[in-house]
Parts: sequence; C-alpha cells; structure tokens
Amino acid sequence: MLKKVAVLGGGNGSHTMAADLALKGLEVRICEAPEFKESFAATLERQEITLVEAGSGEKTAKLALATTDFEQAIKGVDYIMMPIPATGHERFFRAIMPYLEDGQTIVSWPGNYASLYFARMLKEEGLKKDVTLAEGHTLPWGCRLEAPGRIKVFVDAWKLLLAALPSKETARVANDLKDYYPVAVASSVLETSLNNLNPIVHPVGTVLNAGAIDNRKEDFHLYRDGTTQSIARAIKAVFEEVSQIGEAVGVKMLEYPEETFWLKSTIMSHYFRAPEDINDTVANIRGPSSMKSRYITEDIPYGLVPVAGLAYSYGIDIPIIDATICLASAINGADYYGEGRSLGELGIAGLKREELDQILRKGS
Amino acid sequence: MLKKVAVLGGGNGSHTMAADLALKGLEVRICEAPEFKESFAATLERQEITLVEAGSGEKTAKLALATTDFEQAIKGVDYIMMPIPATGHERFFRAIMPYLEDGQTIVSWPGNYASLYFARMLKEEGLKKDVTLAEGHTLPWGCRLEAPGRIKVFVDAWKLLLAALPSKETARVANDLKDYYPVAVASSVLETSLNNLNPIVHPVGTVLNAGAIDNRKEDFHLYRDGTTQSIARAIKAVFEEVSQIGEAVGVKMLEYPEETFWLKSTIMSHYFRAPEDINDTVANIRGPSSMKSRYITEDIPYGLVPVAGLAYSYGIDIPIIDATICLASAINGADYYGEGRSLGELGIAGLKREELDQILRKGS
Repeated sequence: MLKKVAVLGGGNGSHTMAADLALKGLEVRICEAPEFKESFAATLERQEITLVEAGSGEKTAKLALATTDFEQAIKGVDYIMMPIPATGHERFFRAIMPYLEDGQTIVSWPGNYASLYFARMLKEEGLKKDVTLAEGHTLPWGCRLEAPGRIKVFVDAWKLLLAALPSKETARVANDLKDYYPVAVASSVLETSLNNLNPIVHPVGTVLNAGAIDNRKEDFHLYRDGTTQSIARAIKAVFEEVSQIGEAVGVKMLEYPEETFWLKSTIMSHYFRAPEDINDTVANIRGPSSMKSRYITEDIPYGLVPVAGLAYSYGIDIPIIDATICLASAINGADYYGEGRSLGELGIAGLKREELDQILRKGS
Repeated sequence: MLKKVAVLGGGNGSHTMAADLALKGLEVRICEAPEFKESFAATLERQEITLVEAGSGEKTAKLALATTDFEQAIKGVDYIMMPIPATGHERFFRAIMPYLEDGQTIVSWPGNYASLYFARMLKEEGLKKDVTLAEGHTLPWGCRLEAPGRIKVFVDAWKLLLAALPSKETARVANDLKDYYPVAVASSVLETSLNNLNPIVHPVGTVLNAGAIDNRKEDFHLYRDGTTQSIARAIKAVFEEVSQIGEAVGVKMLEYPEETFWLKSTIMSHYFRAPEDINDTVANIRGPSSMKSRYITEDIPYGLVPVAGLAYSYGIDIPIIDATICLASAINGADYYGEGRSLGELGIAGLKREELDQILRKGS
C-alpha cells in the first residue's frame, strides 16, 4: 500500500506528481538535487505546489517536505518516484543508492530502460538491497511548469503500462498504484520502455523539421506545425520498426490505430486525452526550440540507441531509426550511438532470448 | 570542331543551351519528345528562343530547326547535347539510338552516370556505332523557363568538368567545346558524375526541411530558407562521404572550401556565379515545392543510389547518404534503392578497381 512517497526531481513531472499525490491524501516529500537549488527555491520556500488543471481549476498541495537532502527525502518512504529526464537517471540514482532501504520500490516515469540500468548499477556497487525497480511507459500527464512551484496539466494518460523488475513483483506494484494512476500490467520492463512514444515520435519529427526549427526557434510547434503528412509517414515507419523489435523480444506494443498517425492531436497516441474543450492541447505544445532539445538529446541516446542495440542483437533492420540517429548526430556534431545507453549498460548485452526473459522475470 | 548541334529536350536547360549555342553562331536544332509537344508549342511555332540574361539583357536566337522528330534532329550533326533530367535519359537515348551516326558525340549535362548507362544500352542492343559518350559535371547555368520559348539565366558556371567515355576521347571533346563553355578536363566520367552537386546538396536539404516544404509548398526557398546551420552540417557530411568514395575509385573532387557550406549563396559550390548586382540569386531560387520534387525523385535514384552502389562495392560507410535515401523512401512510400540506377545498369557491378579503370579508359 502507498503511504509515504518521495518524488525525486524538480521539473514539470516531479512537481505534478508530488502535488497530485499529496492532493490524493498521501504523505509526499519532493527532493531536487542541490545543484538545481536556485530554480527549486520557490518550492523549498513554500513547501507547497500549485496545480492548475484544465476543467478542475487550481488547487494547492501541502507537502510533507520539500528538500535537497536525498537521505532525508527517502528515509522511511515505501515508494520513490522518479519522474525525471533520463539524462538525470544516473545522477539521482547514485545519490539515493547509499540510503536505499529494504522493501522500497523505485518507479521511473517513463522508464527509458531505467529499471535495467539501475539494476546494473546496484550489481556493480555490490548492493544487495531488497528493493523493487519499476517503471511506467510514460509520464501520466502532459504538463509544464508555468512559474516556480506552479504547474499546469493539459493532458492525462488514461492507460499507463506498468512493470517491475523482477516482473513477478509487477502485480504487487500495480495493485499499490492502481488507486492513483490508470495502470495496466505490462509483461516486463522491456514492454514499458519500448512503448514509450517519445523516442518514436520526437527524434524523427525533429530531424525532418530541422530547417523549420533552426528558423523558427521559440515559435515552433512540432505537433501543430511539424506533423505534416511526410513526418507522420516517417513516425509510422519508426513505430513499425520498434514493433518488429518488440516481436523479436516477445513484447506487445500498445495499439496505435492507423488514423492516430495522421492526427496532430493523437500522434502521441490515443492513450492521452485532453478535456474536450481544449481539444487542440497536444497540437499546441510548444517546441522543440532547437536541435539540441530533449526531443533529440534525451530521446535518441536514452530511447532510440537501446532500441538500435536490441535490433542489432536480434538481427532486425531499422533503417529509419538508424537514419534518424545518424542525421541528428551529423547535425549536432555528436556521436549518439557512442554516447547512448548501450545493452552493456543495461546488463543485457549478447543475450539469447531465454536468457533475456530470465533476467526480466527474476531480476538477474 | 563544333558546327552542327542537336539539343535534346524541351526544358530549362535545353532551351538555354540551344539559344546560347545559336547566338554563338552554331547551327542548332532542338528536339523535344512528341508526347511533350504541347508545352513545346511556342518554340515549334516560332523556331526561335528568347534568352534573358542578367546584365546583358534580352536576345533572340534563330534556330536551324525546332522539331519533335528525333531522326530529323540528329541526322548529320556532329554533337548531340542532352541537357535533360536523368529521368528522361532512357526515353531520349532509346529514341535516338536507331539514328546514331559514326563520329557523333553525345554530351549529357549533367552526367548523372549517363555515359556508362548509355554505353550499356548500346552494348545490350548490339549497336557497334563509333560514337563518343561524354558528360559535364553540371548544367552550365542556373536557368528557368519564364514563359514558353523564353528563358532566364541567373547564374553561370565558371568551371565545368568534362569527360568522355572512353576517357582517351576527353581531350578531343574538351577542345571542341572550349570556345563555348569553361571546360576543365576530368579524369573520367566517374569524376564528372560524382562531382555533380545536386545529389550532394538537394536530397538531404529537402529531407531535413520536409515539414517546412509540406507546409510552405510554393513559397519555400531551399537556399534562402532551408539552408540553416543544421542543414549545412548535413550537406557537408554528404560531401565528405562522396569524397571518400571518390578517393576509393581514384576520382578527384572539386574544391569545396569550408566556408562555402555555410553560405546560402555558395552552397551549390563556388563554381557558379551570379552578376554582382544580383548577389542573392542562388539564395532566391524557389523550391522545392513538394517532397516529390526532382530534388528527391531525380537526385536520389540517379545521383545518390549509384553513389551508394559504389560505396557498398568498395566497403565504404555512408550513413548520412543512407539516412537520406531511407527517410525519403519512407516519406514518399517509394523504394529508391530498388528503383535507382544500379551499378549493374551502368555495366560496372562487382568490378575491381583495375577493371573499373579499364572500362573508363577504353570504354569497355
């Protein structure tokens, strides 16, 4: 059962999750890394967060604690939530590792292969804590910080895939979370990670709009302006490549009906919905404002690169994903294949299907 | 020596070349395919072409003949010029093949591997005519039909690579053409074809502007609007990949100084120049207006696909070129690798470097 929760991070997702769970009656602590203290000052000061939700107005959530002290944040909690960018995974997990307690569950939103990554970190440090690593396939909302300590939610997920590592713990975690989120059980943490739609939609959509993004900067809207017929076709091709990998590793992809690819409001899947009166909410999400946006710098190295690793491992051609990674690398003068999350870092390099299944099921 | 010339085709390039050579005192015939009679009607009717050149005003060129009869067009000429899109190569060459005469020289502008392609067609038909196949690395001008029979030239090449197949004929052809064009001798028809900048600049520039092109249609300007920093980087990467192939097959690439990639007016190389008073001419070239533009449908299958074939043959990685071909294929629902000009069609599949050199030198 969920009682005491620590939410890590100080961005859109973390503020939303902390406020939402506090408003739902839980004892919630939020913890940002000390190096980001400045942008987190309002929340530290107020010890509360204002949540603005379309349709249901404005509410302020009282927190049990807002801090930059990781030890204080996670001591005695049953759940540790990580609704943070994948670029922060290592930093935050390394910060809490020394203080982890038996029985705790750590959930990443979205996973981006975090459960496998954290399992390998624990193994490497020789930490034999009885913790469960879990993940959702996406963040439960589309949300943005409007001002320090004030966040706006504009779309809700109505189906959230959830899985734990080891997968035998999934049912228990899903049961704990079902009163708070619309969870649906996934077969493994590969199912949640492969179903994250950010890497499927964002990188190729951004690359094929490189000229427009360079020119428009702040005013660019990927969904409204950038998701033209050409881009929708390419996104569909990426989804089909990921689906082939899913099939090879025995993972079911979420339904992505044909028409969804052609609508600016559902291209991020029909599992998100906005209140009817603000139907163009998804389309009107702003950005990316540059080719160094998280749509590239997070979604490629932490999203598409592990996909490419699995493809290579299982002998599957992924020309459109490769194309996206290569062009983004050339544009940004980066080596995303080299920098990105490798199967080695996830502790699943060179495994046969049965060996992979065993790790997902048993956790090692 | 150049006396009687037939210019094939009825587009920008053909009209410009016919008018230019007629104004330079040659006896010029122009021949469009009968199926395009309608758009060629004004020229057929007038038997002359009006040429508008920035700086030097308007001139009208009297033609020896404007026709849609291929036999009449090429009978007795010493040079047959083909300033036509690569998509028309097969159609036009098949049309003139039965009437070719010993001693004639056929020049393609630009080559796009046409010399090798025509040599294979002649061989396949068992035609043992004593003709020379030759090509320039580009069309000598940037030009557009302003109205039927009236064309505007806005940039001139000041260096035109020229080669013949067999390459022992190059000196003779260059000597014939040097009074009319700024020819520079290339080592072989692979040097001219690999140095065509259209496939280097256009496809990747178009793909990375897919969203903008879908949205803007008629008003898009690749050089002015679309050649942002991201796109310039990708174009540079394509040039570097082609250069690697050039090195592998012993072909010298034109100088492409670093700064050229970053200027909207010289990205198509500093070998083109516009009169100083219309300095933004290149930047202001309109288009492409759709993803099915010749920037994709000609420059990929007839430009990048043979490059990819050579790369594969000589074990060279070309990730950015592959990326461009794959994304354009996904966007247009096409299979450009399959449709494009293969090394087999050029008669040079599976050759070792020495065998290739021999074909280029001796013609077979």
